[in-house]
Amino acid sequence: MDPQTYMDVATVVTKLKMYPYFDIAHYILMCISVREDVQPAQAQAGSSGPVQPFARKHPLSSWLSSMLICFAGSILANFLLGEPVITPFKDHQSIITATAVWYLINFSPFDLVYKICKFLPFKLAICVLKETQRAHKVYHGVLVAAKLYPSAYLIIVAVGTIKGAGSGLMKNIDRLIRGVWIPGSNEILQPTFATKASLVASIIFLCERLNLIAVPHPLIYFGVVLFFVYFKISSVILGIHDPFVPLENLFCAIFMGGMWDALRRATSKETAKEDESKDLRNDAMKLKEEKKKD
Amino acid sequence: MDPQTYMDVATVVTKLKMYPYFDIAHYILMCISVREDVQPAQAQAGSSGPVQPFARKHPLSSWLSSMLICFAGSILANFLLGEPVITPFKDHQSIITATAVWYLINFSPFDLVYKICKFLPFKLAICVLKETQRAHKVYHGVLVAAKLYPSAYLIIVAVGTIKGAGSGLMKNIDRLIRGVWIPGSNEILQPTFATKASLVASIIFLCERLNLIAVPHPLIYFGVVLFFVYFKISSVILGIHDPFVPLENLFCAIFMGGMWDALRRATSKETAKEDESKDLRNDAMKLKEEKKKD
Amino acid sequence: MDPQTYMDVATVVTKLKMYPYFDIAHYILMCISVREDVQPAQAQAGSSGPVQPFARKHPLSSWLSSMLICFAGSILANFLLGEPVITPFKDHQSIITATAVWYLINFSPFDLVYKICKFLPFKLAICVLKETQRAHKVYHGVLVAAKLYPSAYLIIVAVGTIKGAGSGLMKNIDRLIRGVWIPGSNEILQPTFATKASLVASIIFLCERLNLIAVPHPLIYFGVVLFFVYFKISSVILGIHDPFVPLENLFCAIFMGGMWDALRRATSKETAKEDESKDLRNDAMKLKEEKKKD
Repeated sequence: MDPQTYMDVATVVTKLKMYPYFDIAHYILMCISVREDVQPAQAQAGSSGPVQPFARKHPLSSWLSSMLICFAGSILANFLLGEPVITPFKDHQSIITATAVWYLINFSPFDLVYKICKFLPFKLAICVLKETQRAHKVYHGVLVAAKLYPSAYLIIVAVGTIKGAGSGLMKNIDRLIRGVWIPGSNEILQPTFATKASLVASIIFLCERLNLIAVPHPLIYFGVVLFFVYFKISSVILGIHDPFVPLENLFCAIFMGGMWDALRRATSKETAKEDESKDLRNDAMKLKEEKKKD
Repeated sequence: MDPQTYMDVATVVTKLKMYPYFDIAHYILMCISVREDVQPAQAQAGSSGPVQPFARKHPLSSWLSSMLICFAGSILANFLLGEPVITPFKDHQSIITATAVWYLINFSPFDLVYKICKFLPFKLAICVLKETQRAHKVYHGVLVAAKLYPSAYLIIVAVGTIKGAGSGLMKNIDRLIRGVWIPGSNEILQPTFATKASLVASIIFLCERLNLIAVPHPLIYFGVVLFFVYFKISSVILGIHDPFVPLENLFCAIFMGGMWDALRRATSKETAKEDESKDLRNDAMKLKEEKKKD
Repeated sequence: MDPQTYMDVATVVTKLKMYPYFDIAHYILMCISVREDVQPAQAQAGSSGPVQPFARKHPLSSWLSSMLICFAGSILANFLLGEPVITPFKDHQSIITATAVWYLINFSPFDLVYKICKFLPFKLAICVLKETQRAHKVYHGVLVAAKLYPSAYLIIVAVGTIKGAGSGLMKNIDRLIRGVWIPGSNEILQPTFATKASLVASIIFLCERLNLIAVPHPLIYFGVVLFFVYFKISSVILGIHDPFVPLENLFCAIFMGGMWDALRRATSKETAKEDESKDLRNDAMKLKEEKKKD
């Protein structure tokens, strides 16, 4: 691709409006995740017969749960920054759009909308839109936090990450609203790729703000979008869920005591060998004694 | 009743001061609900012998739990609106009154106060006071939210509802303070009548603000009070717990996929009949085969 | 000790800077408490073989959990006072120091740092520093709250207590981040000595502000430090965990219905005696009848 064309595309991507298409893609994926997160819980409850969907039995809980996940990034960021957590509910347009999406995903005749959204080509398109929106949210999270706390790098990165991957962090509260409680799993204990990628993107945008990266803004932004989209598509098609794992393992091996572990194992192996030889000698002694008795 | 008299009564009701009688009625019912919510948890723990009341063993936990429930509406509304959640504890008069009520409900000699409050005529009187206070709280919740977010109808209704029925929404946190955790039940999953009635009242007050109801304010306010009181009394005396259920079922049947369900059932019934006839034929065949063998 | 010397020492203690030594002592104890709180949870999970430490498997969760506990006082106080909860993360110096302590406690070669910190003389020194820091935090919590709400005594005492003993109150949330959930235990249900002592210290500082104690400030402050240090040392060395228990029992016996209980027991004892004599008579009757049969 000719660099100028690339730059033009990047500039267009930077200025994309999120509403309505990108936001709708986001709401679709969030409502599907809420709908699918509920099913195993019902299976646990051991209900027999034709299982009625959760949203049918508890529409209020399902709706509030979906809304919380749809606006999780803003809600959590507002909470941390001391702003009213209810603010996202001020924007009627978004709420009505999200409610319409929630309704169509859960109550469309013959589950048509849900099935279409799960159909691979459509799913891929929705994911591409959603990842573009994620980059947008991370960037604006970094901007907002940097305005409030110009020199607090940790807060800037945290807000960027939360804006981009709030749904994961909200999951425990969200499940509680649906009457499900799985304390042993949360986003901080087992961070998903979306969270890690948002973290990396936040750090990149922060570095850009600090003039550590001397590349025009549209290129950085478009690069982040491509990074999100590329790994999302490879996750959906190829099932590569976390390309960060090798890096993490390396990091843990070096800094989180992996080296000391290896050292200890090495030294303890020697003692293990000594123990083994002792055991062998003992066994031999016992055999001799038994023979004597005979 | 002569309309003028009715209007006069309504005006008086609108201007009633909540402190002390109405607030005390509220505190009494809240402290009783905390006290009674604790008992089953103890039963679960399987303690044998004469069970010591929870408030005796854990006075701090019982007190804080009761205070949180007594001021649940303000605390939750403050949290959502980004104001200090501790604000209700600033008002010494209310806190001392609530503490006195908590003390009398839990530690009066021979459980006298508790037993009196549970005695039907007294209970009815307390409930009437409490429901009047609920209407007052819903109305003031709507006022406060409408001042902060004039055009955010969802927030106005939410804050009104929370002010009126905060204790239900607070229950999970409240139980946690008492060491009880029942994730499978919460107010959003199974909303009680109090919550639904507060929601309806909030919507009515909002409609009034938007000039959609052309009735003088005292009449609307008094109507809401009567609505609350009427259904509370019918709940206490007749055991009608939720007069909204038929409406909800109708709503769910129309909008929440009940129609599609019926359609599906109708079509699946036909296939079921076909299956049945198949089964009958199969059975007949088997019988014939068996006869042949004989 | 000569009073003037005592006064001089007290003045020096009042003006001590917390950073770095006192804060580091605090971080060390908090990181150790997080590290040790995790182990039983692993044991529950029933993992066999050489157990890998939690921090190795989930460094992010362990780090965030330790940070939340290290800054629990500020976070909780900010939450209650409606200020941004993320503020403590603005102070890079503290965060980096706490992170370094967390790293050394969890990943030092051969667990050297952890073992040194658990070695009694060092542990005592760390505890002395930590208790001095606690007094400092309680005092500054009281100051901050008194500035915001000059006449709300309850809030002043609450904020002082939370600043001094926030780690206990944060424990449930903190455990949740580590995937552990023990709803039946929390600081309000079973307050530790640290919480109670912070409460007493807050009340003392509040009384000082209200001019109810006519003693120079350094003496009060130094007295509180000595009180904290003395009971902490006696707890570490002698295993006296809660010197408040007798007072509490007395208080409960007088105000929390203990007296009524005793009265009831006394009256029920008499009935019990009557029952006993009845039983005896019954037994005698049975024996007679049996003899007759023979």
